[in-house]
Amino acid sequence: MRHIVSMEDFSTREIHDILSMAKAFEEQRYLTQNNQVLVSNLFFEASTRTKLSFEVAQRKLQLQVIPFEVSTSSVQKGETLYDTVKTLEAIGCNMLVIRHPENDFYKTLLDHVEIPIINAGDGSGQHPSQCLLDLYTIQKEFGRFVGLKVMICGDLKHSRVARSNAKALSMLGAEVYFSSPDEWKDENLLGFGKYVSVDEAIEEVDVVMMLRVQLERHAAHYSLETYHDQYGLTVDRAKKMKPDSIIMHPAPVNRGVEISDELVEAPQSRIFEQMKNGVFVRMAMMETLLQKWGRNRYENIVQERQMV
Amino acid sequence: MRHIVSMEDFSTREIHDILSMAKAFEEQRYLTQNNQVLVSNLFFEASTRTKLSFEVAQRKLQLQVIPFEVSTSSVQKGETLYDTVKTLEAIGCNMLVIRHPENDFYKTLLDHVEIPIINAGDGSGQHPSQCLLDLYTIQKEFGRFVGLKVMICGDLKHSRVARSNAKALSMLGAEVYFSSPDEWKDENLLGFGKYVSVDEAIEEVDVVMMLRVQLERHAAHYSLETYHDQYGLTVDRAKKMKPDSIIMHPAPVNRGVEISDELVEAPQSRIFEQMKNGVFVRMAMMETLLQKWGRNRYENIVQERQMV
Amino acid sequence: MRHIVSMEDFSTREIHDILSMAKAFEEQRYLTQNNQVLVSNLFFEASTRTKLSFEVAQRKLQLQVIPFEVSTSSVQKGETLYDTVKTLEAIGCNMLVIRHPENDFYKTLLDHVEIPIINAGDGSGQHPSQCLLDLYTIQKEFGRFVGLKVMICGDLKHSRVARSNAKALSMLGAEVYFSSPDEWKDENLLGFGKYVSVDEAIEEVDVVMMLRVQLERHAAHYSLETYHDQYGLTVDRAKKMKPDSIIMHPAPVNRGVEISDELVEAPQSRIFEQMKNGVFVRMAMMETLLQKWGRNRYENIVQERQMV
Repeated sequence: MRHIVSMEDFSTREIHDILSMAKAFEEQRYLTQNNQVLVSNLFFEASTRTKLSFEVAQRKLQLQVIPFEVSTSSVQKGETLYDTVKTLEAIGCNMLVIRHPENDFYKTLLDHVEIPIINAGDGSGQHPSQCLLDLYTIQKEFGRFVGLKVMICGDLKHSRVARSNAKALSMLGAEVYFSSPDEWKDENLLGFGKYVSVDEAIEEVDVVMMLRVQLERHAAHYSLETYHDQYGLTVDRAKKMKPDSIIMHPAPVNRGVEISDELVEAPQSRIFEQMKNGVFVRMAMMETLLQKWGRNRYENIVQERQMV
Repeated sequence: MRHIVSMEDFSTREIHDILSMAKAFEEQRYLTQNNQVLVSNLFFEASTRTKLSFEVAQRKLQLQVIPFEVSTSSVQKGETLYDTVKTLEAIGCNMLVIRHPENDFYKTLLDHVEIPIINAGDGSGQHPSQCLLDLYTIQKEFGRFVGLKVMICGDLKHSRVARSNAKALSMLGAEVYFSSPDEWKDENLLGFGKYVSVDEAIEEVDVVMMLRVQLERHAAHYSLETYHDQYGLTVDRAKKMKPDSIIMHPAPVNRGVEISDELVEAPQSRIFEQMKNGVFVRMAMMETLLQKWGRNRYENIVQERQMV
Repeated sequence: MRHIVSMEDFSTREIHDILSMAKAFEEQRYLTQNNQVLVSNLFFEASTRTKLSFEVAQRKLQLQVIPFEVSTSSVQKGETLYDTVKTLEAIGCNMLVIRHPENDFYKTLLDHVEIPIINAGDGSGQHPSQCLLDLYTIQKEFGRFVGLKVMICGDLKHSRVARSNAKALSMLGAEVYFSSPDEWKDENLLGFGKYVSVDEAIEEVDVVMMLRVQLERHAAHYSLETYHDQYGLTVDRAKKMKPDSIIMHPAPVNRGVEISDELVEAPQSRIFEQMKNGVFVRMAMMETLLQKWGRNRYENIVQERQMV
C-alpha cells in the first residue's frame, strides 16, 4: 500500500496495523512533541490587524496555529458555532480566539468548553484586546492613568471599543470625555465621562482617541467632507492639541474622514505604535490564560521574572 | 538592492550571485532543515473536521504544512487537478491529502506521482480516514470486532462511509445491520449485512451508527420532523439501547434530524470521541505511508517500540 | 478569569497584570524566540505555483509564515495596499512578498517601509522570481548563457516574463528571438533580440520558451486549434528541435493551446524542473535580501561557504 485511497485496498492485517499505531500515538509512545500548544483563530468577520496580530503573537509564544477558514468550513453546511467550537476542542485545540458578528456569541460556549476562549470582537459588543492595547499605549506614553484626560470621538453608539475604553480608563483613574454627532451619542457612557464639544476639549486633553466611521453602514448620513469638517480630526484641530498629547485610532483608518490623511503618520500619532503594541498585549493575554489553565512552558520563568 | 521588484534593477553580477546561491541551496550546502517533511491538504469541498484533524495530526508528527486554498489557486484559471498535483510535487511536497467532489479522482494520479496521496473523500466514493477512525473508536470501546453487532442507519446510498464501514466491519468479524428509508437503500451492501427495522434492531446492537442527512440534497423528500420520527435516533429509541451500547455519527450532525439534539453529547454518544480519535488515526495513516516511502524520522523508534 | 471575553470582567489589578506582562514581552524578558524572522505573502491575484513556491522556500529557510488572505482582510473594508503593508510592518513582519494586479504597485511603498519587499508579479509588469528561475534552469542545463539561442514565443505584449527574460538573457550574452502573432508583438523588445518565424527558428535554437495564452483575455481572437497549429509548439514542430534543446514554459500550461499536451512532460521539457528550481531561486532571493537587512542566521555560513 503506497497510497491510501480506498478501504478496498486494506487487508485485515493492514487495518490492525493502523489501529495499533494510532493507539501508540494516543498513548504518546512515540517521540511526538507532547508539549505543543495548539490554538486556532476563528474569524467570522473580515479583519487584518486583529487576526494577524494574534497570529504573530502566537508564533512569538511558540504556539502551533491551526488555520481555520470560515468560507471552506462546515459552517457552510449549516454547522453551528457551538458544534464548530466543540469540534476544535475535540481534535485537540488548546485555546480559541473568536470574532463573530453576533453580540455575546460566547455566552452559549463558556460553560461547555474545557479550553480558554478569547473574544476578538463580538458584534457591537466587546473587543478586549483592542481595549488593552489602547491602555498599554497610553501607559507606555504617560506612565500613568490617574489625572490623564482622554477624549473619545466619533460613532460612540456602534463602537466596540468606546464603552470598554471609557469604563476601563475611568476605573484606572483617567478623566474621559466624549464627542460625537447627536445621533451617535450613547447614553450608557455617561457613567464614565461627559460629552464635550471637540473644539473646546481639543486644547486640554492628553489623548485624542478617534473612532472609525463605518462607511458601509453610515454613508448616507453625511457627506464625508462635511463629517470631516464638523467631527473629524482636521489639521487645524490637531494644531490646537497640547505639545505632548497624542492621537490614537483603532484602525483601519478612513483617511480624510474621521482623521486627516496627513495626521495618520504625524509625530503625535500613535496609530501604528498601537498595532505594534497589540502584539505584546495579545501575547500577555494568551500567556495569562494558558497559565491559568496550566498549559504553559513559561510558567516558571514568569514566576521568577514577573515584575509587578 | 534593498528590495526585489524588477529585473531592471539587477546587474549581471547580481544575477550571477542569486544563481550561485540558488545552486548552493539546491545542493544543500547551507544549514537548512534537510529533514523537513512537507505536506499539503487540497480540499476541493468544504470541511471542518477532516481538514483540521489532518492539520493537527500533521503538527503532532512535526510535518511542515504548506497551505493550499482552492479559491485563490490557479484552479481558478482552469488548471487541472493533475497539473496542480504535479506542481505541488515539483515544488517539494512529500505527501498530499486530497478531498475532491469527483468519484475516483485519484485514479488518474497514482501512476504519475512519486509521493504518497491520501484520499480524504472522493464524491460519494471512499473516505478511508473516517472508516479507520470509526473502527478505532469501536475497538477502543469493546476491545474486539468479532461478534459485535453494528447497525448503520440513514442515507446509505449517498454515504461515503456506509459501504467502507460495512465491508471493513464484516471483514473484521462484526455483524452488520442496515436501516434506511427505501429510496436510500443500496443493494450493493447486501454482501456485508442485512436490512432490518430500526425499532427491532435497536435493542440488540452494540453500536448505532447514524449517517448524516445531506439536507442540501434531500430536503424535499421529507419534512425534517417526519424523518426524525420515522428514521432518526429519537430519545425514545435511544432508551431501548442496551446499557453498554454506543452511538456514533461521522458529523457534522443535523441536530434534531438524524439524531435528537440531546443525544449528541449524551453519555452513550461517542461523537466527539470519534473526532478526538481521528487525529491519532490520521497520524498513523500518514506515518505508515511516510515509512513506506522512506521519509520519516520516527522510523527507528517505530521499529523498536511497535506493539503489533 | 478563565476566558477573556469582556472588559467588564477585569479588575483594575488584572488589567495592570496584563499590561506588565505585555511590557515584559516587549522588552523580551521572556524566553521567546527572538531570532524568529516573520514573513507574509500578500497575493491579490490567483496563484498556485508562485505562492506555494515562496511558502516552501520560506519553510526551508526556517522563516515563520504569517498567513494573509485578501478575501478575509480589511482590504474588504476598503483599506489601501499602503495601509495594509504598513500594518504588517507594524505588527512585526520582517519581509513581504506581494503580487498585485496593478503595474508598479510597489512604487508608492518602497520609500515608506523599513522591511524588504519582493514583487511576485505586478500587472503586466515584472515578475523577477520567474525570470531568475528561468535563468537558473538555463544555466543548470547548459552551464553558460553566452552564445545560447533562446526563442520566446506567444503573447509577448501582455507577458510579465517576456521583457524581463529578453533583457536579462541579452545582458548575460544569449541571443534572443521572438515569435508571435502580429497583434501580440511588442516593439519594445527589439532592443534585446529579433522577430523570427517559429518554423524557421525552431531548428536552430537551444531553448524554446513558450508563453501562456491568457484564455480569459484572448479567447475571442483565435480558435484554440487554429492558434495551436499556427503559433503553438506542436509535436511536429518539436521534432525539428536540436537534440539537446529544451522546452520551457512559466505555467500554468494550457495543454493543447500554446503547447501540445504530450510535450508537457516529454524528455525535452523542463516545465516541472522550472517549478522545482523556483524554490531554490526564491530561497536565494529572500536570503540575499535578509542578509542585506541584517536579519539572517545563515550569514556567517554564507560568508564561509559562498562559492562565487
